[in-house]
Amino acid sequence: MRTLLDIKTEFNEYLNQTLPNRNDLEKGIRYAMLEGGSRFRPLLFLTIIETFGLDASRYFSIALAIEMVHASSLVHDDLPEMDNDEIRRGIPTVHKAFGHPQALLIGDAMLANSFQYIATNKLLLETEKVNLIRALSEAAGSEGLVLGQYNELASEKPTLDELNAIHHLKTGKMFELSVRAAMIVANRRGNNGEWLYFSSLLGVLYQIKDDFMDFKENHDLKIETYVSIVGVDRTKEIYREKRESLFTLVKQLDSNGSLLKDLIETMFM
Amino acid sequence: MRTLLDIKTEFNEYLNQTLPNRNDLEKGIRYAMLEGGSRFRPLLFLTIIETFGLDASRYFSIALAIEMVHASSLVHDDLPEMDNDEIRRGIPTVHKAFGHPQALLIGDAMLANSFQYIATNKLLLETEKVNLIRALSEAAGSEGLVLGQYNELASEKPTLDELNAIHHLKTGKMFELSVRAAMIVANRRGNNGEWLYFSSLLGVLYQIKDDFMDFKENHDLKIETYVSIVGVDRTKEIYREKRESLFTLVKQLDSNGSLLKDLIETMFM
Repeated sequence: MRTLLDIKTEFNEYLNQTLPNRNDLEKGIRYAMLEGGSRFRPLLFLTIIETFGLDASRYFSIALAIEMVHASSLVHDDLPEMDNDEIRRGIPTVHKAFGHPQALLIGDAMLANSFQYIATNKLLLETEKVNLIRALSEAAGSEGLVLGQYNELASEKPTLDELNAIHHLKTGKMFELSVRAAMIVANRRGNNGEWLYFSSLLGVLYQIKDDFMDFKENHDLKIETYVSIVGVDRTKEIYREKRESLFTLVKQLDSNGSLLKDLIETMFM
Repeated sequence: MRTLLDIKTEFNEYLNQTLPNRNDLEKGIRYAMLEGGSRFRPLLFLTIIETFGLDASRYFSIALAIEMVHASSLVHDDLPEMDNDEIRRGIPTVHKAFGHPQALLIGDAMLANSFQYIATNKLLLETEKVNLIRALSEAAGSEGLVLGQYNELASEKPTLDELNAIHHLKTGKMFELSVRAAMIVANRRGNNGEWLYFSSLLGVLYQIKDDFMDFKENHDLKIETYVSIVGVDRTKEIYREKRESLFTLVKQLDSNGSLLKDLIETMFM
Protein backbone atom coordinates (compact mmCIF):
# COMPACT_ATOMS: atom_id res chain seq x y z
CA MET A 1 0.00 0.00 0.00
CA ARG A 2 1.42 3.30 -1.14
CA THR A 3 1.68 6.05 1.44
CA LEU A 4 1.36 9.79 0.96
CA LEU A 5 5.12 10.09 1.35
CA ASP A 6 5.66 7.47 -1.37
CA ILE A 7 3.58 9.51 -3.80
CA LYS A 8 5.32 12.75 -2.88
CA THR A 9 8.74 11.12 -3.32
CA GLU A 10 7.76 9.60 -6.67
CA PHE A 11 6.32 12.90 -7.84
CA ASN A 12 9.46 14.81 -6.83
CA GLU A 13 11.57 12.28 -8.75
CA TYR A 14 9.28 12.70 -11.74
CA LEU A 15 9.76 16.47 -11.62
CA ASN A 16 13.52 16.08 -11.35
CA GLN A 17 13.62 13.79 -14.36
CA THR A 18 11.08 15.63 -16.47
CA LEU A 19 12.21 19.23 -16.17
CA PRO A 20 14.99 19.93 -18.69
CA ASN A 21 18.29 21.49 -17.68
CA ARG A 22 19.88 22.66 -20.94
CA ASN A 23 20.29 26.39 -20.36
CA ASP A 24 20.02 29.11 -17.73
CA LEU A 25 16.31 29.64 -18.29
CA GLU A 26 15.63 25.95 -17.71
CA LYS A 27 17.91 25.99 -14.65
CA GLY A 28 15.82 28.86 -13.32
CA ILE A 29 12.61 26.91 -13.85
CA ARG A 30 14.12 23.89 -12.09
CA TYR A 31 15.24 26.09 -9.18
CA ALA A 32 11.72 27.49 -8.81
CA MET A 33 10.16 24.03 -9.02
CA LEU A 34 12.55 21.67 -7.25
CA GLU A 35 13.83 23.50 -4.20
CA GLY A 36 11.35 22.42 -1.54
CA GLY A 37 7.67 23.26 -1.54
CA SER A 38 4.80 21.47 0.15
CA ARG A 39 3.43 20.13 -3.18
CA PHE A 40 0.03 20.56 -1.57
CA ARG A 41 -1.88 21.37 -4.79
CA PRO A 42 -0.48 18.48 -6.88
CA LEU A 43 -0.82 16.07 -3.95
CA LEU A 44 -4.40 17.14 -3.46
CA PHE A 45 -5.05 16.28 -7.11
CA LEU A 46 -3.12 13.00 -6.92
CA THR A 47 -4.71 11.74 -3.69
CA ILE A 48 -8.20 12.50 -4.99
CA ILE A 49 -7.29 10.55 -8.14
CA GLU A 50 -6.50 7.57 -5.88
CA THR A 51 -9.73 8.12 -3.96
CA PHE A 52 -11.52 7.75 -7.30
CA GLY A 53 -9.80 4.38 -7.79
CA LEU A 54 -7.21 5.48 -10.38
CA ASP A 55 -3.42 5.19 -10.29
CA ALA A 56 -1.90 8.56 -9.36
CA SER A 57 1.41 7.84 -11.13
CA ARG A 58 -0.31 7.94 -14.49
CA TYR A 59 -1.29 11.57 -13.98
CA PHE A 60 1.96 13.16 -12.85
CA SER A 61 2.12 15.45 -15.90
CA ILE A 62 -1.18 17.05 -14.88
CA ALA A 63 0.09 17.43 -11.32
CA LEU A 64 3.23 19.03 -12.74
CA ALA A 65 1.15 21.56 -14.70
CA ILE A 66 -0.80 22.50 -11.56
CA GLU A 67 2.37 22.89 -9.48
CA MET A 68 4.08 24.89 -12.24
CA VAL A 69 1.30 27.48 -12.42
CA HIS A 70 1.38 27.80 -8.63
CA ALA A 71 5.18 28.08 -8.52
CA SER A 72 5.20 30.68 -11.31
CA SER A 73 2.87 32.85 -9.24
CA LEU A 74 5.27 32.57 -6.29
CA VAL A 75 8.23 33.66 -8.45
CA HIS A 76 6.32 36.79 -9.49
CA ASP A 77 4.89 37.33 -5.99
CA ASP A 78 8.39 37.47 -4.54
CA LEU A 79 9.56 40.21 -6.94
CA PRO A 80 10.41 43.61 -5.48
CA GLU A 81 7.33 45.27 -7.01
CA MET A 82 5.11 42.71 -5.24
CA ASP A 83 6.10 41.28 -1.83
CA ASN A 84 9.84 41.90 -2.20
CA ASP A 85 10.83 38.65 -0.52
CA GLU A 86 14.45 37.56 -0.51
CA ILE A 87 14.03 34.13 1.03
CA ARG A 88 11.56 31.36 0.25
CA ARG A 89 11.73 27.84 1.64
CA GLY A 90 15.00 28.79 3.35
CA ILE A 91 16.90 29.69 0.17
CA PRO A 92 17.18 32.87 -1.94
CA THR A 93 14.10 33.67 -4.01
CA VAL A 94 14.42 33.27 -7.77
CA HIS A 95 15.16 36.95 -8.43
CA LYS A 96 17.87 36.96 -5.75
CA ALA A 97 19.47 33.87 -7.27
CA PHE A 98 18.96 34.61 -11.00
CA GLY A 99 18.38 38.34 -11.26
CA HIS A 100 15.32 40.49 -11.40
CA PRO A 101 14.39 40.54 -15.14
CA GLN A 102 15.40 36.86 -15.31
CA ALA A 103 12.88 35.98 -12.57
CA LEU A 104 10.15 37.84 -14.44
CA LEU A 105 10.90 35.76 -17.54
CA ILE A 106 11.29 32.49 -15.59
CA GLY A 107 7.77 33.01 -14.18
CA ASP A 108 6.41 33.81 -17.66
CA ALA A 109 8.01 30.70 -19.17
CA MET A 110 6.58 28.51 -16.40
CA LEU A 111 3.08 29.85 -16.93
CA ALA A 112 3.29 29.38 -20.72
CA ASN A 113 4.92 25.93 -20.47
CA SER A 114 2.46 24.48 -17.98
CA PHE A 115 -0.25 24.07 -20.64
CA GLN A 116 2.13 21.99 -22.74
CA TYR A 117 2.38 19.29 -20.09
CA ILE A 118 -1.34 18.75 -20.45
CA ALA A 119 -1.49 19.12 -24.24
CA THR A 120 1.28 16.56 -24.85
CA ASN A 121 0.01 13.94 -22.38
CA LYS A 122 -0.22 10.55 -24.09
CA LEU A 123 -2.91 8.92 -21.95
CA LEU A 124 -5.70 11.46 -21.90
CA LEU A 125 -8.46 11.87 -24.44
CA GLU A 126 -8.43 15.12 -26.41
CA THR A 127 -11.66 16.22 -24.70
CA GLU A 128 -10.12 15.65 -21.28
CA LYS A 129 -7.08 17.71 -22.25
CA VAL A 130 -9.24 20.60 -23.46
CA ASN A 131 -11.31 20.52 -20.27
CA LEU A 132 -8.19 20.43 -18.10
CA ILE A 133 -6.58 23.30 -20.01
CA ARG A 134 -9.73 25.35 -19.72
CA ALA A 135 -9.92 24.69 -15.96
CA LEU A 136 -6.23 25.55 -15.50
CA SER A 137 -6.53 28.75 -17.50
CA GLU A 138 -9.63 29.84 -15.57
CA ALA A 139 -8.09 29.07 -12.17
CA ALA A 140 -4.87 30.92 -13.00
CA GLY A 141 -6.10 33.92 -14.98
CA SER A 142 -8.27 36.99 -14.60
CA GLU A 143 -11.13 35.15 -12.89
CA GLY A 144 -8.93 33.24 -10.47
CA LEU A 145 -5.48 33.48 -8.92
CA VAL A 146 -4.38 36.69 -10.66
CA LEU A 147 -7.65 38.48 -9.86
CA GLY A 148 -7.12 37.60 -6.18
CA GLN A 149 -3.60 39.03 -6.27
CA TYR A 150 -4.84 42.12 -8.10
CA ASN A 151 -7.67 42.76 -5.64
CA GLU A 152 -5.30 42.25 -2.75
CA LEU A 153 -3.11 45.10 -4.04
CA ALA A 154 -6.11 47.42 -4.00
CA SER A 155 -7.55 46.46 -0.61
CA GLU A 156 -6.06 48.44 2.25
CA LYS A 157 -8.71 47.84 4.89
CA PRO A 158 -10.76 44.84 3.78
CA THR A 159 -13.72 43.60 5.78
CA LEU A 160 -13.80 39.90 6.66
CA ASP A 161 -16.05 39.26 3.65
CA GLU A 162 -13.68 41.09 1.33
CA LEU A 163 -10.72 39.21 2.77
CA ASN A 164 -12.54 35.92 2.25
CA ALA A 165 -13.32 36.88 -1.35
CA ILE A 166 -9.63 37.61 -2.03
CA HIS A 167 -8.55 34.32 -0.47
CA HIS A 168 -11.20 32.42 -2.37
CA LEU A 169 -9.65 33.70 -5.62
CA LYS A 170 -5.97 33.64 -4.64
CA THR A 171 -5.93 30.25 -2.92
CA GLY A 172 -9.32 28.62 -3.26
CA LYS A 173 -9.45 28.64 -7.06
CA MET A 174 -6.25 26.62 -7.35
CA PHE A 175 -7.50 24.10 -4.74
CA GLU A 176 -10.74 23.89 -6.67
CA LEU A 177 -8.67 23.26 -9.80
CA SER A 178 -6.98 20.26 -8.14
CA VAL A 179 -10.40 18.85 -7.33
CA ARG A 180 -11.91 19.63 -10.75
CA ALA A 181 -8.90 18.20 -12.57
CA ALA A 182 -9.31 14.91 -10.69
CA MET A 183 -13.00 14.86 -11.58
CA ILE A 184 -12.16 15.45 -15.26
CA VAL A 185 -9.64 12.62 -15.56
CA ALA A 186 -11.85 10.27 -13.54
CA ASN A 187 -14.68 11.20 -15.89
CA ARG A 188 -17.03 11.94 -13.00
CA ARG A 189 -20.17 13.76 -13.91
CA GLY A 190 -22.88 15.02 -11.61
CA ASN A 191 -23.00 14.55 -7.85
CA ASN A 192 -19.77 16.45 -7.33
CA GLY A 193 -21.26 19.06 -4.99
CA GLU A 194 -19.64 17.61 -1.88
CA TRP A 195 -16.23 17.71 -3.56
CA LEU A 196 -16.62 21.36 -4.47
CA TYR A 197 -17.77 22.13 -0.93
CA PHE A 198 -14.68 20.29 0.27
CA SER A 199 -12.40 22.47 -1.86
CA SER A 200 -14.00 25.70 -0.69
CA LEU A 201 -13.75 24.68 2.98
CA LEU A 202 -10.14 23.73 2.36
CA GLY A 203 -9.39 27.15 0.89
CA VAL A 204 -10.84 29.00 3.87
CA LEU A 205 -9.07 26.82 6.40
CA TYR A 206 -5.75 27.07 4.59
CA GLN A 207 -5.93 30.83 4.64
CA ILE A 208 -6.87 31.10 8.32
CA LYS A 209 -3.92 28.88 9.14
CA ASP A 210 -1.63 31.00 6.99
CA ASP A 211 -2.81 34.23 8.59
CA PHE A 212 -2.36 32.74 12.06
CA MET A 213 1.20 31.59 11.27
CA ASP A 214 2.03 35.07 9.96
CA PHE A 215 0.63 36.57 13.17
CA LYS A 216 2.69 34.26 15.36
CA GLU A 217 5.85 35.23 13.46
CA ASN A 218 5.15 38.95 13.56
CA HIS A 219 2.57 40.57 15.85
CA ASP A 220 2.85 43.93 14.10
CA LEU A 221 1.89 42.89 10.59
CA LYS A 222 0.91 45.83 8.44
CA ILE A 223 -1.59 43.87 6.37
CA GLU A 224 -5.13 42.89 7.29
CA THR A 225 -5.59 39.25 8.24
CA TYR A 226 -8.16 37.10 9.99
CA VAL A 227 -6.35 37.78 13.23
CA SER A 228 -6.30 41.57 12.85
CA ILE A 229 -9.97 41.64 11.90
CA VAL A 230 -11.58 39.22 14.37
CA GLY A 231 -8.83 38.79 16.97
CA VAL A 232 -6.70 35.81 18.06
CA ASP A 233 -9.29 33.96 20.11
CA ARG A 234 -12.07 34.17 17.56
CA THR A 235 -9.63 33.13 14.81
CA LYS A 236 -8.73 30.00 16.79
CA GLU A 237 -12.41 29.22 17.35
CA ILE A 238 -13.31 29.60 13.68
CA TYR A 239 -10.29 27.53 12.69
CA ARG A 240 -11.24 24.65 15.01
CA GLU A 241 -14.87 24.64 13.92
CA LYS A 242 -14.00 24.59 10.25
CA ARG A 243 -11.28 22.00 10.73
CA GLU A 244 -13.79 19.74 12.44
CA SER A 245 -16.20 20.08 9.50
CA LEU A 246 -13.41 19.42 7.03
CA PHE A 247 -12.16 16.30 8.84
CA THR A 248 -15.68 14.90 9.03
CA LEU A 249 -16.23 15.56 5.33
CA VAL A 250 -12.91 13.98 4.32
CA LYS A 251 -13.67 10.80 6.30
CA GLN A 252 -16.82 10.51 4.26
CA LEU A 253 -15.16 11.31 0.89
CA ASP A 254 -12.17 9.02 1.47
CA SER A 255 -14.05 6.19 3.14
CA ASN A 256 -12.10 3.37 1.48
CA GLY A 257 -8.58 4.76 1.60
CA SER A 258 -6.42 6.97 3.72
CA LEU A 259 -4.26 9.06 1.36
CA LEU A 260 -6.53 12.11 1.18
CA LYS A 261 -7.25 11.85 4.93
CA ASP A 262 -3.50 11.73 5.58
CA LEU A 263 -2.86 14.74 3.35
CA ILE A 264 -5.54 16.86 5.00
CA GLU A 265 -4.65 15.80 8.54
CA THR A 266 -0.94 16.44 7.93
CA MET A 267 -1.77 19.89 6.63
CA PHE A 268 -4.09 20.89 9.48
CA MET A 269 -3.01 18.77 12.43
CA MET B 1 -14.25 41.38 -51.80
CA ARG B 2 -12.94 41.93 -48.31
CA THR B 3 -9.79 44.02 -47.96
CA LEU B 4 -7.03 43.73 -45.39
CA LEU B 5 -8.37 46.85 -43.71
CA ASP B 6 -11.85 45.29 -43.52
CA ILE B 7 -10.45 42.29 -41.67
CA LYS B 8 -8.39 44.45 -39.33
CA THR B 9 -11.42 46.63 -38.55
CA GLU B 10 -13.64 43.59 -37.96
CA PHE B 11 -11.02 41.98 -35.76
CA ASN B 12 -10.57 45.16 -33.70
CA GLU B 13 -14.35 45.31 -33.22
CA TYR B 14 -14.33 41.68 -32.17
CA LEU B 15 -11.65 42.39 -29.56
CA ASN B 16 -13.57 45.39 -28.27
CA GLN B 17 -16.75 43.33 -27.90
CA THR B 18 -15.12 40.18 -26.57
CA LEU B 19 -12.78 41.50 -23.89
CA PRO B 20 -14.71 42.01 -20.64
CA ASN B 21 -14.62 45.28 -18.72
CA ARG B 22 -15.96 44.43 -15.27
CA ASN B 23 -13.07 45.42 -12.99
CA ASP B 24 -9.68 47.13 -12.96
CA LEU B 25 -7.79 44.00 -13.96
CA GLU B 26 -10.00 43.59 -17.02
CA LYS B 27 -9.65 47.30 -17.82
CA GLY B 28 -5.89 46.80 -17.72
CA ILE B 29 -6.11 43.89 -20.13
CA ARG B 30 -8.29 45.95 -22.48
CA TYR B 31 -5.83 48.84 -22.29
CA ALA B 32 -2.95 46.53 -23.22
CA MET B 33 -4.94 44.96 -26.05
CA LEU B 34 -7.03 47.73 -27.57
CA GLU B 35 -4.84 50.83 -27.64
CA GLY B 36 -3.29 50.59 -31.09
CA GLY B 37 -0.94 47.88 -32.24
CA SER B 38 -0.17 46.68 -35.75
CA ARG B 39 -2.07 43.37 -35.23
CA PHE B 40 0.59 41.88 -37.47
CA ARG B 41 0.62 38.42 -35.87
CA PRO B 42 -3.18 37.87 -35.83
CA LEU B 43 -3.51 39.36 -39.34
CA LEU B 44 -0.80 37.05 -40.57
CA PHE B 45 -2.82 34.12 -39.21
CA LEU B 46 -6.11 35.46 -40.58
CA THR B 47 -4.84 36.26 -44.07
CA ILE B 48 -3.23 32.82 -44.39
CA ILE B 49 -6.57 31.32 -43.34
CA GLU B 50 -8.15 33.17 -46.27
CA THR B 51 -5.35 32.02 -48.58
CA PHE B 52 -6.33 28.46 -47.61
CA GLY B 53 -9.90 29.19 -48.68
CA LEU B 54 -11.46 29.54 -45.22
CA ASP B 55 -13.41 32.44 -43.74
CA ALA B 56 -11.15 34.46 -41.42
CA SER B 57 -14.05 35.74 -39.29
CA ARG B 58 -14.71 32.26 -37.98
CA TYR B 59 -11.26 32.13 -36.37
CA PHE B 60 -11.08 35.45 -34.54
CA SER B 61 -10.81 33.76 -31.13
CA ILE B 62 -7.59 32.04 -32.22
CA ALA B 63 -6.26 35.35 -33.55
CA LEU B 64 -7.17 36.92 -30.20
CA ALA B 65 -5.18 34.26 -28.32
CA ILE B 66 -2.12 34.89 -30.52
CA GLU B 67 -2.36 38.67 -30.08
CA MET B 68 -2.90 38.32 -26.32
CA VAL B 69 0.26 36.29 -25.80
CA HIS B 70 2.21 38.83 -27.85
CA ALA B 71 0.69 41.81 -26.00
CA SER B 72 1.38 40.21 -22.60
CA SER B 73 5.05 39.95 -23.52
CA LEU B 74 5.07 43.67 -24.39
CA VAL B 75 3.52 44.58 -21.03
CA HIS B 76 6.30 42.70 -19.23
CA ASP B 77 8.99 43.93 -21.66
CA ASP B 78 8.12 47.55 -20.84
CA LEU B 79 8.54 47.06 -17.07
CA PRO B 80 11.41 48.91 -15.36
CA GLU B 81 13.40 45.70 -14.77
CA MET B 82 13.30 45.00 -18.52
CA ASP B 83 13.31 47.86 -21.08
CA ASN B 84 11.86 50.49 -18.72
CA ASP B 85 9.71 52.08 -21.42
CA GLU B 86 7.20 54.74 -20.47
CA ILE B 87 5.49 55.16 -23.83
CA ARG B 88 4.20 52.58 -26.28
CA ARG B 89 2.10 53.35 -29.33
CA GLY B 90 2.07 57.00 -28.25
CA ILE B 91 0.40 56.45 -24.87
CA PRO B 92 1.72 55.53 -21.40
CA THR B 93 2.82 51.91 -21.03
CA VAL B 94 0.64 49.68 -18.85
CA HIS B 95 2.77 50.09 -15.73
CA LYS B 96 2.75 53.90 -16.13
CA ALA B 97 -1.03 53.87 -16.48
CA PHE B 98 -1.95 51.12 -13.96
CA GLY B 99 1.03 50.78 -11.63
CA HIS B 100 4.02 48.53 -11.54
CA PRO B 101 2.78 45.40 -9.68
CA GLN B 102 -0.54 45.79 -11.51
CA ALA B 103 1.22 45.60 -14.89
CA LEU B 104 3.04 42.46 -13.80
CA LEU B 105 -0.30 40.86 -12.93
CA ILE B 106 -2.06 42.17 -16.06
CA GLY B 107 0.61 40.46 -18.17
CA ASP B 108 0.26 37.23 -16.17
CA ALA B 109 -3.52 37.23 -16.54
CA MET B 110 -3.25 37.77 -20.30
CA LEU B 111 -0.84 34.89 -20.70
CA ALA B 112 -3.02 32.55 -18.62
CA ASN B 113 -6.28 33.69 -20.26
CA SER B 114 -5.09 33.33 -23.85
CA PHE B 115 -5.35 29.53 -23.72
CA GLN B 116 -9.01 29.80 -22.73
CA TYR B 117 -9.94 31.51 -25.97
CA ILE B 118 -8.78 28.43 -27.82
CA ALA B 119 -10.15 25.88 -25.33
CA THR B 120 -13.66 27.38 -25.36
CA ASN B 121 -13.92 27.83 -29.14
CA LYS B 122 -17.18 26.28 -30.39
CA LEU B 123 -16.16 25.53 -34.00
CA LEU B 124 -12.91 23.63 -33.65
CA LEU B 125 -12.46 19.93 -33.11
CA GLU B 126 -10.92 18.91 -29.78
CA THR B 127 -7.78 17.66 -31.59
CA GLU B 128 -7.38 21.00 -33.33
CA LYS B 129 -7.69 22.83 -30.01
CA VAL B 130 -5.05 20.63 -28.39
CA ASN B 131 -2.68 21.14 -31.33
CA LEU B 132 -3.21 24.90 -31.27
CA ILE B 133 -2.67 25.09 -27.51
CA ARG B 134 0.50 23.05 -27.79
CA ALA B 135 1.80 25.30 -30.59
CA LEU B 136 0.92 28.45 -28.62
CA SER B 137 2.57 27.17 -25.46
CA GLU B 138 5.72 26.16 -27.35
CA ALA B 139 5.97 29.47 -29.21
CA ALA B 140 5.49 31.51 -26.04
CA GLY B 141 7.44 29.52 -23.45
CA SER B 142 10.95 28.35 -22.67
CA GLU B 143 11.67 27.17 -26.22
CA GLY B 144 10.31 30.26 -27.94
CA LEU B 145 9.59 33.89 -27.13
CA VAL B 146 10.70 33.84 -23.49
CA LEU B 147 13.95 32.02 -24.31
CA GLY B 148 14.71 34.73 -26.86
CA GLN B 149 14.11 37.45 -24.27
CA TYR B 150 16.19 35.56 -21.72
CA ASN B 151 19.12 35.07 -24.09
CA GLU B 152 18.97 38.71 -25.08
CA LEU B 153 19.50 39.73 -21.44
CA ALA B 154 22.68 37.66 -21.34
CA SER B 155 24.19 38.72 -24.67
CA GLU B 156 26.29 41.85 -24.43
CA LYS B 157 28.29 41.51 -27.65
CA PRO B 158 26.47 39.03 -29.86
CA THR B 159 27.81 37.99 -33.26
CA LEU B 160 25.45 38.22 -36.23
CA ASP B 161 24.64 34.50 -35.84
CA GLU B 162 23.86 34.92 -32.14
CA LEU B 163 21.71 37.96 -32.89
CA ASN B 164 19.84 35.99 -35.56
CA ALA B 165 19.28 33.15 -33.10
CA ILE B 166 17.81 35.55 -30.54
CA HIS B 167 15.52 37.14 -33.12
CA HIS B 168 14.45 33.76 -34.40
CA LEU B 169 13.21 32.91 -30.90
CA LYS B 170 11.90 36.32 -29.86
CA THR B 171 10.09 37.23 -33.07
CA GLY B 172 10.28 34.32 -35.48
CA LYS B 173 8.63 31.75 -33.22
CA MET B 174 5.46 33.82 -32.90
CA PHE B 175 5.33 34.38 -36.67
CA GLU B 176 5.80 30.66 -37.14
CA LEU B 177 2.93 30.15 -34.70
CA SER B 178 0.62 32.28 -36.88
CA VAL B 179 1.53 30.12 -39.86
CA ARG B 180 1.26 26.82 -37.97
CA ALA B 181 -2.06 27.79 -36.41
CA ALA B 182 -3.48 28.47 -39.87
CA MET B 183 -2.22 25.08 -41.07
CA ILE B 184 -3.83 23.36 -38.06
CA VAL B 185 -7.30 24.87 -38.55
CA ALA B 186 -7.12 24.33 -42.33
CA ASN B 187 -6.16 20.74 -41.59
CA ARG B 188 -3.17 20.90 -43.94
CA ARG B 189 -0.74 18.04 -43.67
CA GLY B 190 2.53 17.60 -45.51
CA ASN B 191 3.93 19.93 -48.15
CA ASN B 192 4.12 22.85 -45.72
CA GLY B 193 7.84 23.45 -46.13
CA GLU B 194 7.41 26.59 -48.19
CA TRP B 195 5.12 28.08 -45.55
CA LEU B 196 7.66 27.45 -42.81
CA TYR B 197 10.40 28.95 -44.98
CA PHE B 198 8.10 31.93 -45.49
CA SER B 199 7.70 32.42 -41.73
CA SER B 200 11.43 32.22 -41.08
CA LEU B 201 12.22 34.72 -43.86
CA LEU B 202 9.53 36.98 -42.45
CA GLY B 203 11.10 36.83 -38.97
CA VAL B 204 14.54 37.83 -40.23
CA LEU B 205 13.22 40.66 -42.40
CA TYR B 206 11.03 42.00 -39.61
CA GLN B 207 13.99 42.18 -37.28
CA ILE B 208 16.31 43.89 -39.76
CA LYS B 209 13.62 46.48 -40.35
CA ASP B 210 13.16 46.96 -36.61
CA ASP B 211 16.90 47.36 -36.04
CA PHE B 212 17.13 49.85 -38.90
CA MET B 213 14.24 51.95 -37.52
CA ASP B 214 15.89 51.96 -34.08
CA PHE B 215 19.14 53.11 -35.70
CA LYS B 216 17.39 55.92 -37.58
CA GLU B 217 15.79 57.15 -34.36
CA ASN B 218 18.97 56.97 -32.32
CA HIS B 219 22.46 56.63 -33.85
CA ASP B 220 24.06 55.95 -30.48
CA LEU B 221 22.10 52.85 -29.47
CA LYS B 222 23.83 50.96 -26.68
CA ILE B 223 22.58 47.57 -27.87
CA GLU B 224 23.92 45.42 -30.68
CA THR B 225 21.82 45.42 -33.84
CA TYR B 226 22.20 44.45 -37.46
CA VAL B 227 23.35 47.98 -38.16
CA SER B 228 26.03 48.05 -35.47
CA ILE B 229 27.36 44.65 -36.52
CA VAL B 230 27.40 44.88 -40.34
CA GLY B 231 26.99 48.63 -40.95
CA VAL B 232 24.22 50.71 -42.53
CA ASP B 233 24.97 49.98 -46.17
CA ARG B 234 25.27 46.21 -45.79
CA THR B 235 22.09 46.17 -43.67
CA LYS B 236 20.20 47.92 -46.48
CA GLU B 237 21.58 45.46 -49.02
CA ILE B 238 20.62 42.40 -46.96
CA TYR B 239 17.19 43.89 -46.33
CA ARG B 240 16.51 44.47 -50.03
CA GLU B 241 17.70 41.01 -51.05
CA LYS B 242 15.58 39.26 -48.46
CA ARG B 243 12.57 41.45 -49.18
CA GLU B 244 12.82 40.49 -52.84
CA SER B 245 12.87 36.79 -51.93
CA LEU B 246 9.93 37.23 -49.59
CA PHE B 247 7.81 39.12 -52.13
CA THR B 248 8.50 36.47 -54.78
CA LEU B 249 7.55 33.71 -52.36
CA VAL B 250 4.35 35.45 -51.25
CA LYS B 251 3.19 35.93 -54.85
CA GLN B 252 3.51 32.18 -55.26
CA LEU B 253 1.81 31.30 -51.94
CA ASP B 254 -1.05 33.76 -52.38
CA SER B 255 -1.54 33.20 -56.11
CA ASN B 256 -5.35 33.40 -56.05
CA GLY B 257 -5.89 36.24 -53.62
CA SER B 258 -4.27 39.42 -52.45
CA LEU B 259 -4.78 39.67 -48.68
CA LEU B 260 -1.49 38.06 -47.63
CA LYS B 261 0.37 39.93 -50.40
CA ASP B 262 -1.20 43.18 -49.16
CA LEU B 263 -0.24 42.45 -45.57
CA ILE B 264 3.38 41.67 -46.41
CA GLU B 265 3.78 44.56 -48.85
CA THR B 266 2.25 47.02 -46.36
CA MET B 267 4.64 45.80 -43.69
CA PHE B 268 7.78 45.98 -45.84
CA MET B 269 7.01 48.55 -48.54
